[in-house]
Amino acid sequence: MLNDQALDILFRSARTQNGFIDKPVSDAQLRALYELMKWGPTTMNSQPGRLVFLRSKAGKEKLAPALSPGNLDKTMKAPVTAIIAYDLRFYENLPRTFPNNPNAKSAFEGEAKAAHVQTTALRNGSLQGAYLILAARALGLDCGPMSGFDNAKVDAAFFPDGRIKSNFLCNLGYGDPSKVFPRNPRLAFDEACTLA
Amino acid sequence: MLNDQALDILFRSARTQNGFIDKPVSDAQLRALYELMKWGPTTMNSQPGRLVFLRSKAGKEKLAPALSPGNLDKTMKAPVTAIIAYDLRFYENLPRTFPNNPNAKSAFEGEAKAAHVQTTALRNGSLQGAYLILAARALGLDCGPMSGFDNAKVDAAFFPDGRIKSNFLCNLGYGDPSKVFPRNPRLAFDEACTLA
Repeated sequence: MLNDQALDILFRSARTQNGFIDKPVSDAQLRALYELMKWGPTTMNSQPGRLVFLRSKAGKEKLAPALSPGNLDKTMKAPVTAIIAYDLRFYENLPRTFPNNPNAKSAFEGEAKAAHVQTTALRNGSLQGAYLILAARALGLDCGPMSGFDNAKVDAAFFPDGRIKSNFLCNLGYGDPSKVFPRNPRLAFDEACTLA
Repeated sequence: MLNDQALDILFRSARTQNGFIDKPVSDAQLRALYELMKWGPTTMNSQPGRLVFLRSKAGKEKLAPALSPGNLDKTMKAPVTAIIAYDLRFYENLPRTFPNNPNAKSAFEGEAKAAHVQTTALRNGSLQGAYLILAARALGLDCGPMSGFDNAKVDAAFFPDGRIKSNFLCNLGYGDPSKVFPRNPRLAFDEACTLA
């Protein structure tokens, strides 16, 4: 079991950041982040998640037209903005990543399976997005995840071949506590959970 | 930043469990699990995730007909099986859970928004499912997440009114190391990530 300080860093004290101090995030940190989050479980080890880490001015400017007004300024200023996306052809890797079942790939092939592919990719790509958020916090980074953007514009700008789809965005860096909003309430146990 | 032992517990040494030792999981542990995972971020604090913690024989038997053969025995024997689900009417809580934007609820209302509701619920319900997995590990529990079941059968048995949809299942308990499978390979950084 983790100690209280670790539980605070991961969950209890962690907050969505709306601004970051002027302290860079290195390539080595982004690689360490992936090397940690990659271990999180996915359906049949399918790993549909794909990440684009934007740090350059050119990369940020390519993203800018897709952002909602409230997310524009903070994203342009963040040390890193990750596009969390998923690969709709994730199943092509299954013979290598899930050799246990030689028929795994065929469960996703063909037009009739397109909805199953989409659901599996969104479900597991989102799990991997959450692994990224918690792995970043575990490594001492702060996160600012966002859904407020135009997915179609991001896909057209970054993934024009249609194989990869954007899921959500996450700014990464060292948070500026003065920019954090008051915390909103969570549902009570009995609203979200049932014991049966 | 968390220490190496904590990173191992969360990610590097954690494994999907296929069997559990005979040691119960208490109601207090399930409540502590929710009180930790609930802090994970969701779009507009929407919190669509819903959890059913099955411990009773009757609860398990209600689930059994929906399970794929490979998941049946281990799930019947697990101390707890969580149904991770999402509420398609999550947005009704937004006036209370996201008071920052009084119009948040209207972004999801009406037939024309049904696809947006579904995507938002699956995305964020999956994020919350990943928070559950990592919170459980942080609290000393082991997880056996599964997608191998018939969602429609689970929904008919547990959520007949159509408002709540099953996402995935997760057995919880104290893992039996002798039942763990060999670890399958993860994608390399350069296969999953781009620096831009």
